[in-house]
Amino acid sequence: MTEHHAHHHDEHHACSHCSPSGIYLFSPSGAIAEPERVRLACERLNALGFKTEVDVDALAVHQRFAGTDEQRLAAIDRSMRQPQDIVLATRGGYGISRLLHQVNWQALADSGKRYVGFSDFTAFSLALLAQTGAVSYSGPTAVAYFGADEPDELTTEMFGEAMRGELELFSFEAPDADPVDEHGVLWGGNLAMVVSLLGTPYFPQVNHGILFLEDVGEAPYRIERMLTQLLHAGVLARQKAILLGAFTEYRQSSDGYDLAVVVQWLRSHVNVPVICGLPYGHTDVMVTLPVGKQVGVATEDGLAYLVIDEHQH
Amino acid sequence: MTEHHAHHHDEHHACSHCSPSGIYLFSPSGAIAEPERVRLACERLNALGFKTEVDVDALAVHQRFAGTDEQRLAAIDRSMRQPQDIVLATRGGYGISRLLHQVNWQALADSGKRYVGFSDFTAFSLALLAQTGAVSYSGPTAVAYFGADEPDELTTEMFGEAMRGELELFSFEAPDADPVDEHGVLWGGNLAMVVSLLGTPYFPQVNHGILFLEDVGEAPYRIERMLTQLLHAGVLARQKAILLGAFTEYRQSSDGYDLAVVVQWLRSHVNVPVICGLPYGHTDVMVTLPVGKQVGVATEDGLAYLVIDEHQH
Repeated sequence: MTEHHAHHHDEHHACSHCSPSGIYLFSPSGAIAEPERVRLACERLNALGFKTEVDVDALAVHQRFAGTDEQRLAAIDRSMRQPQDIVLATRGGYGISRLLHQVNWQALADSGKRYVGFSDFTAFSLALLAQTGAVSYSGPTAVAYFGADEPDELTTEMFGEAMRGELELFSFEAPDADPVDEHGVLWGGNLAMVVSLLGTPYFPQVNHGILFLEDVGEAPYRIERMLTQLLHAGVLARQKAILLGAFTEYRQSSDGYDLAVVVQWLRSHVNVPVICGLPYGHTDVMVTLPVGKQVGVATEDGLAYLVIDEHQH
Repeated sequence: MTEHHAHHHDEHHACSHCSPSGIYLFSPSGAIAEPERVRLACERLNALGFKTEVDVDALAVHQRFAGTDEQRLAAIDRSMRQPQDIVLATRGGYGISRLLHQVNWQALADSGKRYVGFSDFTAFSLALLAQTGAVSYSGPTAVAYFGADEPDELTTEMFGEAMRGELELFSFEAPDADPVDEHGVLWGGNLAMVVSLLGTPYFPQVNHGILFLEDVGEAPYRIERMLTQLLHAGVLARQKAILLGAFTEYRQSSDGYDLAVVVQWLRSHVNVPVICGLPYGHTDVMVTLPVGKQVGVATEDGLAYLVIDEHQH
């Protein structure tokens, strides 16, 4: 098991980011099957020191979605206007892609809220970054993490620190990482969602960035095909580093083709450092990452370091 | 069952396209599991009046591929230089994406060969179109169709006519088709492969085109997400018509979300005629379509017509 170390400020500065805040839960993607998980998530978030407020349509259901497109657009709209600082997606699933052209991205950026979500939410974060340059967060969602029977402690802790602006340095075991010591804009998310924005106005043009990726339930050849698309689109060569999180639940193939082969192929095709082992993905332990923020990345002695915040505030 | 009508010239003109030709079989994608299917395919193609020749590495195996990248690139290279007019992919699978930046597309176009393939081969056809404007064919592959236990007769017949330049008009039942009577460049193929080229130099910029799509084994929400990507990329709105073939083997969903919902969504989001029922896809019956060719499309009395060739030669 990989060991994770989250470092935070020793002193708490008197800034708005460090003061406890409230969390507004909304459902921009898939419908929620077990509403009690949302209540449970609120309890856990309360225990973590956050007030919580649940959007009026968070439990709406239309087909596979948490409400019609109109309902979910209205929920996004409400999320900007309500008083809590943090807006957390209840879950991923599928549904944001359909809304991208109808969201007022500038208003979202101007709201100053800290948006957090995962998986399908990658489309939200990257569209926001592409359209406005604003930072949002990729991290644990309410239902799958905070509403789980046994929420992971480290995930919870890192989420709290990230939301309070206290997650300054984060390290993880990465024994086979290519050597790197760079700065750049951190961006990425779910690989299928990242790739699903290519060729559209919602794909951020990040040069010299630090790209992080994960996926779930994709066959290795599909993962490779998606990475190939990023390669041919010129995206990979423009990055300073590529961080690979967990690629889980993929179908085992009988043809000797697995993720190690894909990573080997990736390394042979891009002259960009590749770092495996990022604790991020459809897994128990995951870090909360700021999408669109300038960060540092370095490797040393089998560890990789993400410098999220260099005491700039 | 949909009824299909293939119309061909009543008179045979004395042109090179109409004279019998030879077929060169090569393997640019996945490895072949049952080599005897290739032999069987050759017999069926011989019976159809085509000489056949099999590439020396058609049965090569490397990981899941029909040979290493170098072997498959060499096979593509040989296919341009050998004497047969037609070059047919033995099968699809996965593998062309990795080669796109290493293929000499102009040399392929200049060779004047008629390339035919399906599924993974969509990447080949569209890259060739994007890079050179040359026409290739999406149709039955050797192993899955001509090497099948019982090859479909109509598919075989239409392939022969298309290869001899005799497939001039093709109609199929399309009771719910939007009315249309247009001309444009026919292009498309496997939806996942079409979308996998977005944002890369291998995605053809076809304006006022007639886009045809099929897919296999994709969940409806993924089909919709891919169509959404084409929508947001501005591709759908630039077309004169969208022809949907078969979307087969998709996982049944329990959330009331199926292909009919996706098609309904598509129609509500693009002001482009949508025609379902094209006999094309991972199905028994499929037409051989010229990718990159100017064609006509029309609907009348519950039938859709594709005018492949208007006696121009």
